[in-house]
Amino acid sequence: MTSGSLKIAVIGGGSSYTPELIEGVLLRLDRLPVTEICLTDIKAGEEKLSIITALTQRMVSKAKADIVVTQTLDRRKAIQGADFVMTQFRVGGLAARQKDEAIPLRYDRVGQETTGAGGFAKALRTIPVILDICRDIEELAPNAWMLNFTNPAGLVTEAIQKHSQVKTIGLCNVPVSMQMMAADMLDCQPSRLKMKFAGLNHLVWVTSAYLDGEDVTQTLLKKVGDGVNFSMKNVFEEPWDPNFLDALGVIPCPYHRYYYQTDAMLAEEQESYRNQGSRATQVMETEAALFRLYQQDSLDSKPKELEERGGAYYSDASLDLVDSIYNNRNALHVVNVKNGGVIASLPNDAVIECSAVVGSEGATPLATDPLPHYVDSLIARVKSYEMLTVDAAVSGNKETALLALATHPLVNDIQVAKSLLADILVENDNDLPQFSAR
Amino acid sequence: MTSGSLKIAVIGGGSSYTPELIEGVLLRLDRLPVTEICLTDIKAGEEKLSIITALTQRMVSKAKADIVVTQTLDRRKAIQGADFVMTQFRVGGLAARQKDEAIPLRYDRVGQETTGAGGFAKALRTIPVILDICRDIEELAPNAWMLNFTNPAGLVTEAIQKHSQVKTIGLCNVPVSMQMMAADMLDCQPSRLKMKFAGLNHLVWVTSAYLDGEDVTQTLLKKVGDGVNFSMKNVFEEPWDPNFLDALGVIPCPYHRYYYQTDAMLAEEQESYRNQGSRATQVMETEAALFRLYQQDSLDSKPKELEERGGAYYSDASLDLVDSIYNNRNALHVVNVKNGGVIASLPNDAVIECSAVVGSEGATPLATDPLPHYVDSLIARVKSYEMLTVDAAVSGNKETALLALATHPLVNDIQVAKSLLADILVENDNDLPQFSAR
Amino acid sequence: MTSGSLKIAVIGGGSSYTPELIEGVLLRLDRLPVTEICLTDIKAGEEKLSIITALTQRMVSKAKADIVVTQTLDRRKAIQGADFVMTQFRVGGLAARQKDEAIPLRYDRVGQETTGAGGFAKALRTIPVILDICRDIEELAPNAWMLNFTNPAGLVTEAIQKHSQVKTIGLCNVPVSMQMMAADMLDCQPSRLKMKFAGLNHLVWVTSAYLDGEDVTQTLLKKVGDGVNFSMKNVFEEPWDPNFLDALGVIPCPYHRYYYQTDAMLAEEQESYRNQGSRATQVMETEAALFRLYQQDSLDSKPKELEERGGAYYSDASLDLVDSIYNNRNALHVVNVKNGGVIASLPNDAVIECSAVVGSEGATPLATDPLPHYVDSLIARVKSYEMLTVDAAVSGNKETALLALATHPLVNDIQVAKSLLADILVENDNDLPQFSAR
Amino acid sequence: MTSGSLKIAVIGGGSSYTPELIEGVLLRLDRLPVTEICLTDIKAGEEKLSIITALTQRMVSKAKADIVVTQTLDRRKAIQGADFVMTQFRVGGLAARQKDEAIPLRYDRVGQETTGAGGFAKALRTIPVILDICRDIEELAPNAWMLNFTNPAGLVTEAIQKHSQVKTIGLCNVPVSMQMMAADMLDCQPSRLKMKFAGLNHLVWVTSAYLDGEDVTQTLLKKVGDGVNFSMKNVFEEPWDPNFLDALGVIPCPYHRYYYQTDAMLAEEQESYRNQGSRATQVMETEAALFRLYQQDSLDSKPKELEERGGAYYSDASLDLVDSIYNNRNALHVVNVKNGGVIASLPNDAVIECSAVVGSEGATPLATDPLPHYVDSLIARVKSYEMLTVDAAVSGNKETALLALATHPLVNDIQVAKSLLADILVENDNDLPQFSAR
Repeated sequence: MTSGSLKIAVIGGGSSYTPELIEGVLLRLDRLPVTEICLTDIKAGEEKLSIITALTQRMVSKAKADIVVTQTLDRRKAIQGADFVMTQFRVGGLAARQKDEAIPLRYDRVGQETTGAGGFAKALRTIPVILDICRDIEELAPNAWMLNFTNPAGLVTEAIQKHSQVKTIGLCNVPVSMQMMAADMLDCQPSRLKMKFAGLNHLVWVTSAYLDGEDVTQTLLKKVGDGVNFSMKNVFEEPWDPNFLDALGVIPCPYHRYYYQTDAMLAEEQESYRNQGSRATQVMETEAALFRLYQQDSLDSKPKELEERGGAYYSDASLDLVDSIYNNRNALHVVNVKNGGVIASLPNDAVIECSAVVGSEGATPLATDPLPHYVDSLIARVKSYEMLTVDAAVSGNKETALLALATHPLVNDIQVAKSLLADILVENDNDLPQFSAR
Repeated sequence: MTSGSLKIAVIGGGSSYTPELIEGVLLRLDRLPVTEICLTDIKAGEEKLSIITALTQRMVSKAKADIVVTQTLDRRKAIQGADFVMTQFRVGGLAARQKDEAIPLRYDRVGQETTGAGGFAKALRTIPVILDICRDIEELAPNAWMLNFTNPAGLVTEAIQKHSQVKTIGLCNVPVSMQMMAADMLDCQPSRLKMKFAGLNHLVWVTSAYLDGEDVTQTLLKKVGDGVNFSMKNVFEEPWDPNFLDALGVIPCPYHRYYYQTDAMLAEEQESYRNQGSRATQVMETEAALFRLYQQDSLDSKPKELEERGGAYYSDASLDLVDSIYNNRNALHVVNVKNGGVIASLPNDAVIECSAVVGSEGATPLATDPLPHYVDSLIARVKSYEMLTVDAAVSGNKETALLALATHPLVNDIQVAKSLLADILVENDNDLPQFSAR
Repeated sequence: MTSGSLKIAVIGGGSSYTPELIEGVLLRLDRLPVTEICLTDIKAGEEKLSIITALTQRMVSKAKADIVVTQTLDRRKAIQGADFVMTQFRVGGLAARQKDEAIPLRYDRVGQETTGAGGFAKALRTIPVILDICRDIEELAPNAWMLNFTNPAGLVTEAIQKHSQVKTIGLCNVPVSMQMMAADMLDCQPSRLKMKFAGLNHLVWVTSAYLDGEDVTQTLLKKVGDGVNFSMKNVFEEPWDPNFLDALGVIPCPYHRYYYQTDAMLAEEQESYRNQGSRATQVMETEAALFRLYQQDSLDSKPKELEERGGAYYSDASLDLVDSIYNNRNALHVVNVKNGGVIASLPNDAVIECSAVVGSEGATPLATDPLPHYVDSLIARVKSYEMLTVDAAVSGNKETALLALATHPLVNDIQVAKSLLADILVENDNDLPQFSAR
Repeated sequence: MTSGSLKIAVIGGGSSYTPELIEGVLLRLDRLPVTEICLTDIKAGEEKLSIITALTQRMVSKAKADIVVTQTLDRRKAIQGADFVMTQFRVGGLAARQKDEAIPLRYDRVGQETTGAGGFAKALRTIPVILDICRDIEELAPNAWMLNFTNPAGLVTEAIQKHSQVKTIGLCNVPVSMQMMAADMLDCQPSRLKMKFAGLNHLVWVTSAYLDGEDVTQTLLKKVGDGVNFSMKNVFEEPWDPNFLDALGVIPCPYHRYYYQTDAMLAEEQESYRNQGSRATQVMETEAALFRLYQQDSLDSKPKELEERGGAYYSDASLDLVDSIYNNRNALHVVNVKNGGVIASLPNDAVIECSAVVGSEGATPLATDPLPHYVDSLIARVKSYEMLTVDAAVSGNKETALLALATHPLVNDIQVAKSLLADILVENDNDLPQFSAR
């Protein structure tokens, strides 16, 4: 890219995460000539948007940066002329997430907002909106890069790749967090450690790891088996069985527990729900507290409390990505992109999460290590669910939606799928217009 | 094949199913010049073997067939010089099956003797024995064909293909039963109906069906959705949801219910177990009654009661296969054979169940219809479990066994897998020597 | 199929081969209730058409068959209501073939009417016409089967499969001739010998051969290497080198000589051309003689002289195919059909030539034996040429045509390709309207 | 890698190219702590080795570098303890190359020392020697990286990957030269231009090119078609036809001319041979002149004359690779490495030439752009030849060697292949012991 000034549009600008992004920008002003940040949100989020915009302006002032910060409820204005469009919104807000987490528990199924049936509902709500945004980008900023953080990030990126012309990369903080924690386990600088990632978003494996070029995969795997967990704030850390890991041979991500330790994960969710309500309820309280903080005129930097929200490294991951694209750095990132043949069992146009080289032309996946067949087949099975879900979200076809749910390894039952689908359609009525139309 | 006289060896000759095979032979004497039938079994089965041998002799006499019927406890004598070796034994007998069905129910998992964790235990017991038999065949009858009915037939055939040089075809009565029932649904002669099968044993789909060349797949699918079930004596017939079938687009086999209607199938198993004990217990009673019948000197034909045992069409399926091989008929059969590339997502040497042309040189799979990705990925996932199970059964590696169970879509949990494995190893102690050796 | 009476339409009915088809029909009246044969041709072929029609009527009379024989210049009348449409025409006639064979020789390239650049020109002329015929069939006889003998049969069938909805099977007499000659080499009845074929039309390999179920591949290969050739009237029989065949491991078809013995084949063509003119010229004489024969009122059967024309077994191969479809026989044939995954290196919708089971619903390929990589890569290379040629024939794009020729292993040079293309376009001007339109 | 001091062993140290490597080392002393350079060669090359060693010492002195320069005829001493082993030798010397180039011309076949039958002979001579070297490295320096420049580099690297445990990367200056020339065509800094390479050594395509992230593939292709050639000193620059390139859609490398412009390339070779003798003869003169230069005590740097020898950018390409490995830079290089699935039509363990990320653990290929089928099939065809050639070189099987040659697209004829093979075996007698042993 060659433009000497950059406009960044943030869709869902009123998100409590936005200060992460702003901090990321301000730390890279030597490399990124950002001149405009435009925050946009929907009408219902106007108050939060104003709070975030004001905080952003204070942060920019403190940094003595020459950046115009604006806010608008007109998404098209934000997109017009943008170089990067960052998306981080939640259709239906935390109230919808509450339902996503609660509905599956009624049927003894995992109620997780990305991996379980909750993620399915979230995808149905999110995909039509993100595709509307894509239409705007195609029209108003066809050369812009859309960096998508909106969950379920793999599903959403797949929908964008298949149903729009927008240049996009999907991003998640799980891989970068694993990288950081692994470096910690091995007591080394993260830059000395290279981990090869392959899989899907929230179902990504580390297939090999090298410290200064030496293979340390088995060492890391042993540490994980010994209880040194990859700790994500939002995944319960049921320990891994060392014999299982030894047979597995590759390193699972925290979310693999949902597939391999289903009973324990479900039991914990059910207990936690009984005691503290859904995780959405807990987040609502955290958010309220954060916004009380954000409103303080004295605050002019990202507060430490934000990190406890679970979004560690998002700031670095996303702005380093902007840096790699803008400055054609050919740096390695773990991103959600088109498969392009590196996982042979998936279609070439399926979106995968893997190590990739990122330059101005976008992200190119690296060849993956050979995947054990039991890894490959789990990826293929979950990708089947994802492809059906994207089809259902776009078409509004209820039968496809039913098949999608029944295909999910954590649902596995038509009657449960029917009940889940019925509840999801009724309780998300306003946010699933594609299904009413039929 | 050109030999003018045929010797058939039946391993597990004392099985209550043997009269099925004998009837099949006697009905085809115009095409199959069988001159010797040798029944063999283990010491513990000697009494049953004698009963069956006597009944066989009466059946042969009645048919005025010129066949020498012999019995032996020396398996090698039976195999020596055989043209066809039929295997239909049960390591550990029905007592082992009782455990196979009971253990999983302790952990709220499907306790089915082929598809569930029960089938896993059965495979661990059976595979070493079948490979011992293969060693004998390689030495004593290297040109013989082994037709394998021993369950889990897909897993056992995979083990044979990978770990021996014996020419083998695995056989199951599910496809032929589906063919018969579908013809009944459509009110036509079975020969007018062509159904294309693809998948794995007990996980086989009908991908298309033609009546006199006209595609009737959707018609059949609709009938199945309307409650006209494929009725197998040994699978509970939870009805299929028509919307689900419509989205699925291909016709499932009765055993698919375990994967798509897991909760209902488990609930029924649990209730049935509470009320009547395991299915093995019920079968014990049926078997006892059958053997009382078989002992009657007046009985000189296959009794009708045998059909209620659940083995419908085994006789025709297996002896028609013998006919196709011996007479080089190039007839279509649905069999378990090496994939050879027709299911692209599986290794070429994986054993699949599919439509095949059978002649004197063996079975050649037909190209399958394109499989929907959600069918393909379920096949791939279950095949992963199967490959790991064969590895574990041959190596006696407990970690591999743990991974195999944790990979099974109906187990899906490491802790449950550990408990299942521990119980299986303890309660099958005498029949799993490969695991004690380590 | 269930209709009690059959109409067969023959497009290119004035062909000297037509008596082959008629004989085939008359030999199968017990199995095929043919009630109408309609012969059609273009205006320029009217005289020949009348001669053939009259001969056909005499043959039918002699057989005392109850078949109405008609002739028409209106192709649509012939197609209307047909059950089978047989295509065997030559756009541009033998005059065009003369050019096809002569042009490549100018540039020291093989001038063969199917395999070489000659086949390319023939494909460009033929494909638009055959697709026009398909449009008629789609409209007037949508359930009819089109059996295509028109060369280059693989290319033409590929065009039909990709650009029409017509049910079609492409047919060539090379595989059946190889089967017959191999049986002769082994001194056995053809029915005892099973040969597995895989490849492309005129580039088909026998990957294994079984006599009564016993593998005789190496025996056959040795005989071919010892000079017992697969003799096709229209391919020069340069002997195969036995060391080469031994390394190859599979049995080549006669046309493989063009790829593996290019220099000798070209030299023979050049010499033959100098001495006797092109093969087309020779065929013209044979044809003239045949039609003189056909005109004799006393002739009421296929004359022996026709067999020397090079079309041995066409009659049996094509009518046996009709029999398999009409009577749902599930018999094995070697045909040109959609790959459907059995040759993994080719697209699923590429047309291949291989062993297949044929019933009323059409032809289903058999799984092929594993192909050695050097066989696979030659198939892939020639298929690239074929796909480009179909694209060029349909689009009339000259650049695509140039790339197609330059991709052909027997052209291998852009400048030669340009010269060939220029000559072909100029000398086939009237028959290549798709290229003038641009 | 973490060692603080580096030993570089140069096998074939007496090569006239060695000053390239030395210059590359001396230019990177800030990044590469080289403390020892050991040059080794065979007895016959002792005089040249001494000249090169002396020149190297003068170059090191001039650079005031703290590097011990040694020479030895004992290869094992050079390898012992090396961190990098660079191979650049020529079995049989230029005299053998003369034969490689002359023999094919006798049969009107391209006589090129890498691509044609000449490269085949060179591979047969080189592979056994390089595998001997690998045995030494496995024993004496198992952690060393072998960077292989020895031609035919793709074939040699394939042999190493398949028949040894040595960590290796194969290197060629064609891709880096294309990168430099393309930057020149576009009048930009090379670093702004990203070209994606995929294919085989000397058969590599640029599938896409980006200038500052913008796709300039068609612009470049047009320039190549307009006559702005990729100029390699050792490939005759027959211009490309613009219509052909337009249809091709991807950018060929200079050596593609042998496949697509065979007649012109052969004609030029034949004329050049008549007028000036083989290229080997010309190189002999250049070499003699170079060594006269190298002997001058006053020379203490790489002389300009060396660049005209045809090895442009070898120095940078190879030492930048050392830098990327030693310093874990994750930089992009175009190298010869294991396919690992990025070219789906080739085996995973085939060696390809492609863009890759290089760090301390080695080279990981990038996902390739989708390859047009006509590109893919040419790659597959040439790779078949390469795999057969490696098999023949290792086994000494003459039938395999015959099949290899007959499979080469530039030979295409068994009789020619037999003649070529016979001449090669006779005229390389001393250097092909693997074939005499049988």
